[in-house]
Amino acid sequence: MESHDLDLDHDSVYDGLLGDSSQQASQWAFGTDFEDPLAGVDTTIPAGVDGAALAAYCLMLGDDALIYAHRLSEWTSNAPDLEDDIALANIALDLLGQARLLLARAAAADPRVVPPLPDGSPIPPDDALAFFREEPAFRNVRMVEATNGDFAVTIARLLLFATHRLALLQRLTTSLDPVLSAIAAKGVKEVTYHRDYAGRWFVTLARGTEESRRRLVAGLRTVWPMYAELSRRCETEALAAEQAFGVDPGTLADEVDAVIEHVLATSGIERPDLPPSGTGPLGRSGHHTEAMGKLLAEMQVVARAHPMGKW
Amino acid sequence: MESHDLDLDHDSVYDGLLGDSSQQASQWAFGTDFEDPLAGVDTTIPAGVDGAALAAYCLMLGDDALIYAHRLSEWTSNAPDLEDDIALANIALDLLGQARLLLARAAAADPRVVPPLPDGSPIPPDDALAFFREEPAFRNVRMVEATNGDFAVTIARLLLFATHRLALLQRLTTSLDPVLSAIAAKGVKEVTYHRDYAGRWFVTLARGTEESRRRLVAGLRTVWPMYAELSRRCETEALAAEQAFGVDPGTLADEVDAVIEHVLATSGIERPDLPPSGTGPLGRSGHHTEAMGKLLAEMQVVARAHPMGKW
Repeated sequence: MESHDLDLDHDSVYDGLLGDSSQQASQWAFGTDFEDPLAGVDTTIPAGVDGAALAAYCLMLGDDALIYAHRLSEWTSNAPDLEDDIALANIALDLLGQARLLLARAAAADPRVVPPLPDGSPIPPDDALAFFREEPAFRNVRMVEATNGDFAVTIARLLLFATHRLALLQRLTTSLDPVLSAIAAKGVKEVTYHRDYAGRWFVTLARGTEESRRRLVAGLRTVWPMYAELSRRCETEALAAEQAFGVDPGTLADEVDAVIEHVLATSGIERPDLPPSGTGPLGRSGHHTEAMGKLLAEMQVVARAHPMGKW
Repeated sequence: MESHDLDLDHDSVYDGLLGDSSQQASQWAFGTDFEDPLAGVDTTIPAGVDGAALAAYCLMLGDDALIYAHRLSEWTSNAPDLEDDIALANIALDLLGQARLLLARAAAADPRVVPPLPDGSPIPPDDALAFFREEPAFRNVRMVEATNGDFAVTIARLLLFATHRLALLQRLTTSLDPVLSAIAAKGVKEVTYHRDYAGRWFVTLARGTEESRRRLVAGLRTVWPMYAELSRRCETEALAAEQAFGVDPGTLADEVDAVIEHVLATSGIERPDLPPSGTGPLGRSGHHTEAMGKLLAEMQVVARAHPMGKW
C-alpha cells in the first residue's frame, strides 16, 4: 500500500509542535495553519488552456474521488473483517488525497468556482469546494454516490471505477497541464492497487461459494447500469480533450473494457446485458440521486456547523 | 505520515490478482485468502511468561486501539476540513493496524480467548476477537469508547491517549515477548505522529480565538476524569509487569505527566482539578458505558450479518 504522504507538504501538518507558535496569528484559531496542498507548485495556466475549462475538469475528477471516498470510508471499522477494513480505509484515504489536490487545482485555475464563504473566513479553497458547495454544483458521476450495499456490490463498483480511473490517470500523466499531470502520476500508483484489490476479490467471490457468486452477480448488475456514465463524454471532457489537458473517455473504452473482460472471463461471469440507467442529464451536469443529498448532509454538517475559522 | 504497510505481509492482500486462483479452495469464498497478520513470526511464548497473562495484556492494548480507531474513523469525510479529515483517518488506520497485530498476538498466546465461532467458519482469530466477542469481554478503557464530541474534545482526548500510549509503547519495545516488542516498535513511530498532531492542534486551539480556547478547556474537562483509568494499574498489568513482558502504568505516570504539563504550560491552560470518573470496576474489567454498546452494535453488525466464510 502506498504511503499517504502528499508529494508536496502534507507532512508539515506535524511540524512545529510547540515551535514558533507565538508567531501564529491569533485572530483565527485555525486561520494561519491551513496547508495549501499545492503550496510551492507553479499553478500558472499553460498557454492554450482555458482556466475555466481546466477548473471544471479538475472539479469533476475531484468530485468523483471525494464522494467515493466518503462512501468507502463508511466501511471503516465496519467491513466484514479487519484486513478489508484496513484495505478499504486505505483506498478511501488515497481518494481523499486525490480529491484534495484536484479541488485545489480547480480553485487555482479559476477562483470563480469557489463558493462564497462566511465573511472573512480563512477556509481554504479546497475545503470550501468540499464543504460549502450545494448539491447541483457537484459534478461526480452517480455511480460513486450510490449507497454501499453489501461487500459484493462494493467490490463490483470498485473494480469498475478503479479500472476506468487507472486508464484515465495513466493518460493524464501527459496532460498539457503540468499540475494535473503530477497529480495523475501520484494517482496511478494508488489506483493500480485499488484495481488489483478489487480484481482479486472479484475472482475470489466468483469462485467461492454458490452464495458468494450469486451476490457478486447481483452486485455487478446493481452497479453496471450506472457505470455507463463514466464513459459518456460530457461537455467538460470534450473541451478538456480539445485543449489537450484532458481525456475523451470514449477513447478509453476499449482499454477499460479489455481489463473488465479479462476479469469476467477469469471469473466465469457474464457481462451484464443491461442498458445505462439514465440517458438524460446525470451527475456530470449536477443532477444527482436521493443518496447524494443524504451523503452531502452528513459530509458537510460538521464544517458548516462550526467552520474552523469561526472558533 | 507513516506508510500503512504492516511490517509483515499486509501487502500480500494485493498479490496474485488473477494468479493461481484455480488452486484456491472453493469450499469457502474467503476461507483460504485470509492473511494472518503474524504469518511467519515465531509466536512461541518465552520462558517465564504465562500465555494467558500475555493474551489478556495484548487483548487490553488491542482493544484500546480497536475501539478508539472506530471512534476516530467516524471523522473520516466528516472532519471540519479535508486536511484533518485525512490526518484523523490516517491515525485511525494506524490504530486499526496495531489492534490487528495485538489481537492476533493474544489469540496465538492463548487460543482460549477466541470466542466460539459459527460452525466450521474459517474466520481468523483476530477477526473473531473483534467481531464476535460480547461487550463484557472487551477490555479497553472507557476513555476510548466515549463519543467524539466536537473537534476540541477530539484533540484533547487524542493528546492524552497518544501521550500515554507513546510512553507505554516505548517501554514495550524491550518487552520479554519478542512479538509484543516488535509490535511496539512499529507503533512508536506511528504514535509519535499522533501525539505531535494532537499537541500542535492543542496549542493552536488554546491560542486561537476566545471561542476555540473555551471549547478546548471544556473538551479537556470532558476527557480528564476518564483519562485516569489509563494509569490505574489493573490486575492484568500487574501480572504483565511481574513477568517482564508488560508495564505497570504507574511507572509511566511521571513521564506522561511531564509531556502533558509542557503542552498545558505552552498553551496557558490549567490542569483540570477533577476527580476520576469512576473508582469501582471500569473498562479494564469489562464494565463499559452505554456508548460502548452502540459502538459495538455498529462495528459488529456487518461481520455478524454475513460472516465472510458463510457466503
